[in-house]
Order: sequence, then C-alpha cells, then structure tokens
Amino acid sequence: MNIAIDWGNSAVKAGFFENGNLLDSYSQIAIEDLRILIREKPPEAVVVSSTSRSAEQLREQLSLNKDTFWLALDGFTPVPLEKRYDTPNTLGTDRIASAVGAKVRFPDSACLVIDMGTCVTYDYVDEESVFHGGMISPGFRMRFRAMHSFTERLPLVEPDDLRPSLLGKNTRQAMQGGVINGLLAELNGIIEAHRRDHPDVKVLICGGDAPFFESSLKPPIFAVPELVLIGLNRILQHNVDLS
Amino acid sequence: MNIAIDWGNSAVKAGFFENGNLLDSYSQIAIEDLRILIREKPPEAVVVSSTSRSAEQLREQLSLNKDTFWLALDGFTPVPLEKRYDTPNTLGTDRIASAVGAKVRFPDSACLVIDMGTCVTYDYVDEESVFHGGMISPGFRMRFRAMHSFTERLPLVEPDDLRPSLLGKNTRQAMQGGVINGLLAELNGIIEAHRRDHPDVKVLICGGDAPFFESSLKPPIFAVPELVLIGLNRILQHNVDLS
Repeated sequence: MNIAIDWGNSAVKAGFFENGNLLDSYSQIAIEDLRILIREKPPEAVVVSSTSRSAEQLREQLSLNKDTFWLALDGFTPVPLEKRYDTPNTLGTDRIASAVGAKVRFPDSACLVIDMGTCVTYDYVDEESVFHGGMISPGFRMRFRAMHSFTERLPLVEPDDLRPSLLGKNTRQAMQGGVINGLLAELNGIIEAHRRDHPDVKVLICGGDAPFFESSLKPPIFAVPELVLIGLNRILQHNVDLS
Repeated sequence: MNIAIDWGNSAVKAGFFENGNLLDSYSQIAIEDLRILIREKPPEAVVVSSTSRSAEQLREQLSLNKDTFWLALDGFTPVPLEKRYDTPNTLGTDRIASAVGAKVRFPDSACLVIDMGTCVTYDYVDEESVFHGGMISPGFRMRFRAMHSFTERLPLVEPDDLRPSLLGKNTRQAMQGGVINGLLAELNGIIEAHRRDHPDVKVLICGGDAPFFESSLKPPIFAVPELVLIGLNRILQHNVDLS
C-alpha cells in the first residue's frame, strides 16, 4: 500500500492506494490519526507534498518503518511529465501533482486542470505529457477577503447564495454576485479559450471550492476531488520504479 | 460654471461644466490648484462626492464664495433616478453618480455601467431611469495584491503585459495571465449575461483601469472616462433646480 499526503495551508489530505487504485481518502485528517492508521497497516511507500512545512518533521511524526520508501516532493523530484516551463524547480508541487493526476485519468488526451483552492490555477498538459504552464488567479474566498481588507467600507461577506442575481439589492448581495458570477464567468471564459485552441481538451476540476462551481460550467467537465492525491501516488510509483 | 469633484481614495478628480457640457477635466488635481482655478473663475455651483473624507473640510479649503451653491453628495441627496435598492442610503455615491452619468449619455436606453477602480462595479439602470442594483468584485490591482498578501509564496506582481498568454511560463506570467485573462473573461461574461436579458442595453465603462480592458471587450462598448463627473454635474443641476 502507498500513502499520498497533501499538506496544504489549511488541511492535511491523505489517500491510500493499492496498485494505483485509490482505496480510501481523507479530505482532512489529523497527523495523529494518520500515524495510527500507519501503525495498523504499514505502507510500502509514502509521498508528501507540503506547501510550507518541513516534510522531514512530518516523517518523524508519522513514525514510519525504516524500510518505508519516502518521497518528499519538490521541484527537483523526477515526475512523469516534461516541464516546458522557465523555472521548473519553482513550480508549485500541487500544480505538478494535479497535472500528473489528470494524465492518470486521460493518458492520451490534452488536459486543462483547474484547481480551486486558496488561488485558482489553470494548467495545460498536452497529449504527449508536456506541461506547458498556465495561470494563477485569486481564489473564491480570497476575493471576499480582499474586498474587505483593501477597502474602508466593504464588509467581510461569506457566500450563502450559489446563484446570486446580476442585480444585487444590497452590499452583501452585490459582493456575492460579483465574486460568484465573476469567477464563474472567468472559469467559463478560460475554458472556452482553451477549447478554442484545443477542441479535444479534457477539462478537469479539483480543489475545495470546485463543488460550488462545477455544475455551472459548460460541460463536459470532469470533477475529480482527489486529483492531487492521484497525481502524488503516480509520482511516487514513478520514483519507486526509478529507484 | 459648475464644478464636479470626485474625491476618491487615491486621487481628486474634477470637471468644469457650462450648461451641462464638460469644458475641462482633471483626472488628478491638487486641492491647492483647484483653489487657484476657483479663485480665478468662481463657479456658481460645486458638487463633491467623497469616499471617506469630510466634504465640509474640502469646502473650507476651496475658499468658495458664500453664495456658491454647494452640494455634498450622500445617500439622501435627491438624484434623477429611482433607486430600487434595499438600502438606498448606503449605496456608494460613485455608483449612483456613474449611473446618472450613463443616463445623461443615453437617456432613453437601459445601461450597464462598469466602473473599474479599486473594485469593479457592475450596475444596471433601465430605460425609465430605475436603478436596479448590481455587483461588486475585486479590482484589477487588488487581485495582484491579494495573491501576494494572502499566500506565503506568491510575489507582488505588476501588470506589464496586456495580452498575456494562457500558458504562463513562470510565476509572474502565470499571475499576470490569471488576473488579466481572468478579469477579461469576467467582464465579457457579465456583459454577455446582461445582453442576454436586455439585448439593447448600452454598456458604458469608466474608471482608472478601464483603458487596460476596453479594447478587448465585445463591442459595442462606450468608454467614458468622465462618467462619474458627468453624473455628478447632472445631480448638481437637479438639486439647483429643486432649490
């Protein structure tokens, strides 16, 4: 069994894989609980992608067996993609992992991968598994936070209406409309632009805020909540094979 | 002569009007220079819209004649629009002024007014001059600022490429692409949604960041940089007539 761990800013996600199949996944798990699961059934290999914390520290906390294959993903880790990018070593490991995950799903297709987290990332991988780069824009909740933090008068608003009107009748409605309708228009517009360039592109969406938007996007859209974990496990297998 | 003053967060804008015609405008003027212009040619009436500062303080600084008609716009000021809004008194004076300005341009048409400042506002006024409300989303520069402030790793990026690729090859390009292509898709999507509901709607765009985007929007788009000033002057006339 392999374990893939995505240690983000707000949550630790984990996926348990057997022969490339996702058996079980946690969208939020405490390190302590993960340690217990590992003690009960020791994995053969573990991969971790962490945005800011030390992977070594995590390794100790997990009390892994000495012979467990351990991979802390960084910009230098071999991946089953060609990175056609100016600065491949500074490319976010989450962006690479979701792109690899997309190719697990659609090995022979070009893929547009949209990850809706703190920021929204849009990355393009072609039929030949070449990663061509992409775009980063502010995430759903960041937009609300920014309008409150960077103006004197606007309140901090939470989304509570997933189909807000174009004609907000008070400040709260107007901000919900602007963020949700605005981001939806952005997503559809960027998807359309990619489809214009590559009519057969597969569009995959993941990330915590994807469920708010996926049903309003122009189909076909493939919603794959565990895309990063799937990609991490594929990268882990790739490195086990190389070792 | 009338003077309309729009005292925003970052700049004081002023327009000089004669019989409803804009003679001269300043997109950024020092209060001292405005005072000199006023001393040289005293206006009959002055209107000010200020986002946070005291209009009374401004009035003193300008050394106006005692008989100058003075109007400090707020939520209770009579305007030549019906506000169909839950909280008409808290509606931003800049949103009302640009909506009134749109009706000066197109008195018999429905108008969508897009003001691209610190935030982007989208407001709809119908053929009968009824203001129906709208939306507020983060402005162009706010999006860059938010990604830097609310993440650990993203730099503060300035726009330097007005037609960025969908396939940014480094962090900077990816952020420029996300913000610029994203906002452009948002603008076009929102405009399209309004045109679907109201095929004859006139789309007017104003605000400091409008020049970055107006040529990339689906025509016809009416770019009117002085829309707020034009609206302020119309509101001033309305109040002079009522007095």
